[in-house]
Amino acid sequence: MSLIIVGTVAFDDVETPFGKSGRMVGGAASYIGLSASHFVKEQHLVSVIGDDFPQDFLDELTDRGVRLEGLERRDGEKSFYWSGKYHFDMNSRDTLATDLNVLATFSPKVPEAAKGARYVLLGNLDPAVQLSVLDQLPERPKLVILDTMNFWMDIALDALKDVLKRVDVLTINDEEARQLSGEHSLVKAAAKIHAMGPKTLIIKKGEHGALLFEDGRMFYAPALPLEDVLDPTGAGDTFAGGFAGYLAATDDISFDNMKRAVIMGSALASCTCEAFGTERLLNLSAEALEERIAQFAELVNFGQPA
Amino acid sequence: MSLIIVGTVAFDDVETPFGKSGRMVGGAASYIGLSASHFVKEQHLVSVIGDDFPQDFLDELTDRGVRLEGLERRDGEKSFYWSGKYHFDMNSRDTLATDLNVLATFSPKVPEAAKGARYVLLGNLDPAVQLSVLDQLPERPKLVILDTMNFWMDIALDALKDVLKRVDVLTINDEEARQLSGEHSLVKAAAKIHAMGPKTLIIKKGEHGALLFEDGRMFYAPALPLEDVLDPTGAGDTFAGGFAGYLAATDDISFDNMKRAVIMGSALASCTCEAFGTERLLNLSAEALEERIAQFAELVNFGQPA
Repeated sequence: MSLIIVGTVAFDDVETPFGKSGRMVGGAASYIGLSASHFVKEQHLVSVIGDDFPQDFLDELTDRGVRLEGLERRDGEKSFYWSGKYHFDMNSRDTLATDLNVLATFSPKVPEAAKGARYVLLGNLDPAVQLSVLDQLPERPKLVILDTMNFWMDIALDALKDVLKRVDVLTINDEEARQLSGEHSLVKAAAKIHAMGPKTLIIKKGEHGALLFEDGRMFYAPALPLEDVLDPTGAGDTFAGGFAGYLAATDDISFDNMKRAVIMGSALASCTCEAFGTERLLNLSAEALEERIAQFAELVNFGQPA
Repeated sequence: MSLIIVGTVAFDDVETPFGKSGRMVGGAASYIGLSASHFVKEQHLVSVIGDDFPQDFLDELTDRGVRLEGLERRDGEKSFYWSGKYHFDMNSRDTLATDLNVLATFSPKVPEAAKGARYVLLGNLDPAVQLSVLDQLPERPKLVILDTMNFWMDIALDALKDVLKRVDVLTINDEEARQLSGEHSLVKAAAKIHAMGPKTLIIKKGEHGALLFEDGRMFYAPALPLEDVLDPTGAGDTFAGGFAGYLAATDDISFDNMKRAVIMGSALASCTCEAFGTERLLNLSAEALEERIAQFAELVNFGQPA
């Protein structure tokens, strides 16, 4: 099944305790597209760039089955740019610059070719933009996955709640789940968030793994402890892309398959952290990914208790 | 196989966002003994109490196979007392009072009956006391497990390092692993801590589960997300007790069995958090524990990837 992906295609500039990236390709949809392409054959990108964005990265996406009819290119304008600096613990960061550029007036257009797609991943963006994409679809997709962040809870909570009503799966981190629900217990937070719309909730906990909640059932995906986390930028997007890509490719949205999809997303996200930007995703072979997935399976395998 | 357990038998007084406990039975060895008794038939307690400690709790321990020849009782003195208040997130707490009382001059005596025990769990205590217990054993046990905390790293690092040289398994939390090793990456921290003595390291991460490291191998035990954490006091001790008790009962210290022991410890620790003090451990049936262990198995089971 093909997958619509919505999100930024942009430039990042990142400093971590391990070094500085300089200006490099980034943006939620870049990570999502590369990650999902490990599973799904056809994706439709809905995004916007300026005339400064490198063609060779777009060619990479095309080679991996990401169709670009929904990618708007604006002459004379610049692509979205974000710059940030990670703290020593790599769990928090300061934003140094956010230049919206083309994103300031982005009005997404879902191309005709994409309108039959049954799977949609709305990457982290203004909820109004996410809503507009859903409004353009002729019928309700089989599965809509939404990624968002505390920023939108702070400044656009009502619009975010409108999107949530039309979403099947929500992916946020633990602090965001607590903020959105007003509950400290993640079990209680999940129940409140279910009532807002998404029947499935994924709580991303970074180095502590991810939790999947659905209908009172729970699944705990570990994170693989890494020797070095060079740059966590895009790990959450990579996770969402791997999760959505696996579901679209298998066309199975049962809870058991969602568990596997969470492991796929986690495995890919762990790879993203091992290098700056999209580098590791770009050179990740199918064999290396399979090996990583096997490491995840081994990590939690304790056999049957005696 | 019988198990020697060393640690405080004391009073706690705890305040959490859910209420106040008032003075209640606590102490590392109380939790350890109750927890380990779910698996191991005979334990030898090495500890000290005053004349204020309730006999009925000691009878409970005896009923569960905890022998008390190594428990010193001092007339006219008071038992160790700790009082603390948890913050809203339950991950941090302030100590309100620490009255050492009998603990100030505690000099452990390992009774003759205990000297054949092949398993030893040194609960969180002054490293000098932990060392003294090891010095009294006629031969090296099959497995020595040490639990400690940042407090001893701050004030008695040299003594702690001396104990570490004689220990097989160390259990600490993630911040303590980082403090002890000077490494932020837990993979690197594990390698440095191995070099200090313990060939096996368990990093307790509270609501984020636990990591087991041995010889470059890793295992990730999840934590069960709980509706409410009423009181996390003693969860780490309960974990260590369940881990040690399971290993002693099965007399198998292979890496695969250690994984299972970590799950047993995690399952018991999750129970401790559900009520104040030792209450849940005291009334935990074998059936309820089995059910909880099954929940842990289900929590991470994602089948084989397609």
